[in-house]
Amino acid sequence: MSLTGHLIIGFARLSTRDTFKGMDATSGAALEPPFSIAGSPEIERACALAHSAFDIYRRSDLALRERFLDACADNIVALGDALLERAGAESGLPRARLETERGRTVAQLRLFADVIRRGDWLGLRIDTAQPDRKPLPRADLRQRKIALGPVAVFGASNFPLAFSAAGGDVASALAAGCPVIVKAHPSHPGTSEMAAGAISDAARECGLPEGTYSHLAGPSNELGAALVADPRIRAVGFTGSRAGGMALVRVAAARPEPIPVYAEMSSVNPVILLPHALKTRAEAIAAGFVASLTAGVGQFCTNPGLLLALEGPDLDRFLVAAADALPNIVPGLMLSRNICANYGSSVERLEKHPSVSVVARGGESRDGNLGRSVLFCAHARDFLRDKVLGEEIFGPASLVVRCTDITELTEILEHIEGQLTATLQMEAEDTPVAARLLPVLERKAGRILTNGWPTGVEVTHAMVHGGPFPATSDSRTTSVGTLAIERFLRPVCYQDIPQGLLPIELRDGNPLNLQRLLDGVNAAP
Amino acid sequence: MSLTGHLIIGFARLSTRDTFKGMDATSGAALEPPFSIAGSPEIERACALAHSAFDIYRRSDLALRERFLDACADNIVALGDALLERAGAESGLPRARLETERGRTVAQLRLFADVIRRGDWLGLRIDTAQPDRKPLPRADLRQRKIALGPVAVFGASNFPLAFSAAGGDVASALAAGCPVIVKAHPSHPGTSEMAAGAISDAARECGLPEGTYSHLAGPSNELGAALVADPRIRAVGFTGSRAGGMALVRVAAARPEPIPVYAEMSSVNPVILLPHALKTRAEAIAAGFVASLTAGVGQFCTNPGLLLALEGPDLDRFLVAAADALPNIVPGLMLSRNICANYGSSVERLEKHPSVSVVARGGESRDGNLGRSVLFCAHARDFLRDKVLGEEIFGPASLVVRCTDITELTEILEHIEGQLTATLQMEAEDTPVAARLLPVLERKAGRILTNGWPTGVEVTHAMVHGGPFPATSDSRTTSVGTLAIERFLRPVCYQDIPQGLLPIELRDGNPLNLQRLLDGVNAAP
Repeated sequence: MSLTGHLIIGFARLSTRDTFKGMDATSGAALEPPFSIAGSPEIERACALAHSAFDIYRRSDLALRERFLDACADNIVALGDALLERAGAESGLPRARLETERGRTVAQLRLFADVIRRGDWLGLRIDTAQPDRKPLPRADLRQRKIALGPVAVFGASNFPLAFSAAGGDVASALAAGCPVIVKAHPSHPGTSEMAAGAISDAARECGLPEGTYSHLAGPSNELGAALVADPRIRAVGFTGSRAGGMALVRVAAARPEPIPVYAEMSSVNPVILLPHALKTRAEAIAAGFVASLTAGVGQFCTNPGLLLALEGPDLDRFLVAAADALPNIVPGLMLSRNICANYGSSVERLEKHPSVSVVARGGESRDGNLGRSVLFCAHARDFLRDKVLGEEIFGPASLVVRCTDITELTEILEHIEGQLTATLQMEAEDTPVAARLLPVLERKAGRILTNGWPTGVEVTHAMVHGGPFPATSDSRTTSVGTLAIERFLRPVCYQDIPQGLLPIELRDGNPLNLQRLLDGVNAAP
Repeated sequence: MSLTGHLIIGFARLSTRDTFKGMDATSGAALEPPFSIAGSPEIERACALAHSAFDIYRRSDLALRERFLDACADNIVALGDALLERAGAESGLPRARLETERGRTVAQLRLFADVIRRGDWLGLRIDTAQPDRKPLPRADLRQRKIALGPVAVFGASNFPLAFSAAGGDVASALAAGCPVIVKAHPSHPGTSEMAAGAISDAARECGLPEGTYSHLAGPSNELGAALVADPRIRAVGFTGSRAGGMALVRVAAARPEPIPVYAEMSSVNPVILLPHALKTRAEAIAAGFVASLTAGVGQFCTNPGLLLALEGPDLDRFLVAAADALPNIVPGLMLSRNICANYGSSVERLEKHPSVSVVARGGESRDGNLGRSVLFCAHARDFLRDKVLGEEIFGPASLVVRCTDITELTEILEHIEGQLTATLQMEAEDTPVAARLLPVLERKAGRILTNGWPTGVEVTHAMVHGGPFPATSDSRTTSVGTLAIERFLRPVCYQDIPQGLLPIELRDGNPLNLQRLLDGVNAAP
């Protein structure tokens, strides 16, 4: 399927008068074709279709929904090289990375197909009637979780495949039974259209209702705000900047009927270099750190933007090793001119900060669109005084905070905002200190690692890609991993409903052979 | 333990200079003793204690926490008649009702003790490492849910025991591992102090940290708002008016770090009288309706405030029967003068409404504090035109909406806001119509009943006492039943954490013998 620049609203592809173009990330040149800009009529049409599809889609056979997600995956694979080429042009991401990302996109759609089959997400519970209970009989009570309603998903700049039109939030929302309306990220409208076409086609091929999926594009923030404000939208998935996420949170809260917003926004992902780890392997830690910091030109939500360690010769060894390694890192192309400009100004702000010194820089960049890595250093007492030092810089920049002792290091951890991840570099001898820090890290982060690096988020059952504010706007959930299906569900209780009217998964005899909680006891299928 | 009028902050009982008094619901007379009013220093102290207790309490042994909830229940029972007498004086509720409510309060504490033991709420998931995976090895990933943090719980006017200082939100928050700070409802400060003392004593007896539980009182809304605004509070449980709930939602959203608010606010609990049910048993339905409408002087969140039926002789039979029965209902004492005054003005608004007629009234009330029941009637087309007709009246008032046909009845259901419950009165012949309505009801309500009445909320595993806005501010959860524990949890992932540092429930060998999801497969203990 070649690019058309059309909006995809249900099964229809349509154009509007106003258009915008994607941009080649390397050259800055405009890319063909022009893309139609969605306005109020298109939002209205997409929401009306999603609303009318909702009751049919959410009540569709689980096996059909499973086939649908597999078909989405198949259709994305079938797009072949054209998808990777367009994604490479629009994002500047290298081919190998995009191949991995496509693999992840396809794998997460298939994983959610498996989740649908497992059925534990339905939260089935049955309390049997007690007709002879005194003084009053007890009714028959049955519970399941149902989909929240149509979901608006925002494409992310840094994952044109895995967090965009066919990405994680789309997969989990569709698995939960929610129709989805994607608002494409304006930096990769072509990639987004192709992936969206794959989903829309899969919905049609599977005989699902029109409105199960739509795809809107446009360069303005107003489009997204109008979509979130529509009363038929019942939840929002977003990955991006803190300002962007909070703008959507405010729109959602101001609706006559507020809705959940799952915005993944801002994290500096602290890495704590414990004393024995530094003593044992300062140089190896530096090598691992530099690799994680500069992977993908630092454009991951889980980029290690903050290092905490005790002052002393072992920290100095780490800094020397990092300062040796960093200049060898060739600056990489950033995702967009906008991101690169923001990165430059954030770096400049720290460069000029009186309490911050530069430890090392990556290789020089000869081009305005390349991200040159940089490692800063500051003292804990200065870090505690100025919250600017704790703010996320999206790109390959990180700040080492020198602490006097573990008490001060703990104070820093208590002081920082919520995080996606927190990492301990430790040896066995560091265990007592690690044990003291762990409860603090649990309060601060969605994922805690030892002796690894936060970049690289596995799509599995136990993954949490979430965390306290502002890492996300809702710490009760995750955007990556199979638990993500729960963010799009709500419980409903059925009291004394006749068998024929009950949802099949709650009927006597367990016809779908699913796990159910029967009078408080897990009844495995 | 006799009443002191003290605030309970951690294990300390203390007084402040400013005081207020409870009021005898029957006579309006002030009740002794005067109660200390919590101000900023008391909020500060309670929040500081809760914060410092949090890491200890949430990581306490599950068996200890279980004993604690059982001890709370024991201590409430040990308060004996004094608790019921004070509750009766402050609320005007009859002794039999308060005995039932105490039973429920105690039972739900013990039920959550059982839930703690079951451990499924911990959401344990393990993805085993794949060290040989190509191109990159996969880390060991383990997930559990942990408590959100200190929770502010607001006592409810209509359940001085079961939804107040030792009520549902307190039980589920404590079970989840959250310290709790209760803001007592000002209409029953004495009942609240007694129940709170039972919880605080249980915490001390079990060796739990001071700050696990505190109890603040005061007559103003500012106290509650200040508590919700405190950065150490991480979630809020509230049952009350729409205005009160939305005020707290706004305070929580305006914090630098927004937090979840579980406000249960407003519901008219539609009951749909399907044609064959009316034809078969109009009179019996009327009897059941009048009993449900007037139970507890209509002061239940699940009171049936809206009836939908098709016009015709069978509906007329229902109305005649209801009009016969209602005058026999002796008006009951309402919970407070304030509630009775609000009820009176809401009823008056409908009496004066040009589209509304009065079908019947309960027996006459000779006293300003008694709630006289009333049944109104209106046409569907008028209901659709004026949203005032769909607003909750807290008290024994209900509105019958006459519909021309099922299409119009469905339109009404689509038109109304979110509800705690929706009920179908039906016969087997009504099944096709019920099947068409059910998906709409699922979208609109947290609990769906057939041939019962919504009042009477069982505390079980499958119960949902929640629903779309404005029934609650967060439809993803319930305030009654064991699923309520989930509202106070968030997931955390542990990546490559050494065994000795892992929480015990995630360690190899499953030492606590709990249900865990192992590589995507349910591993029953």
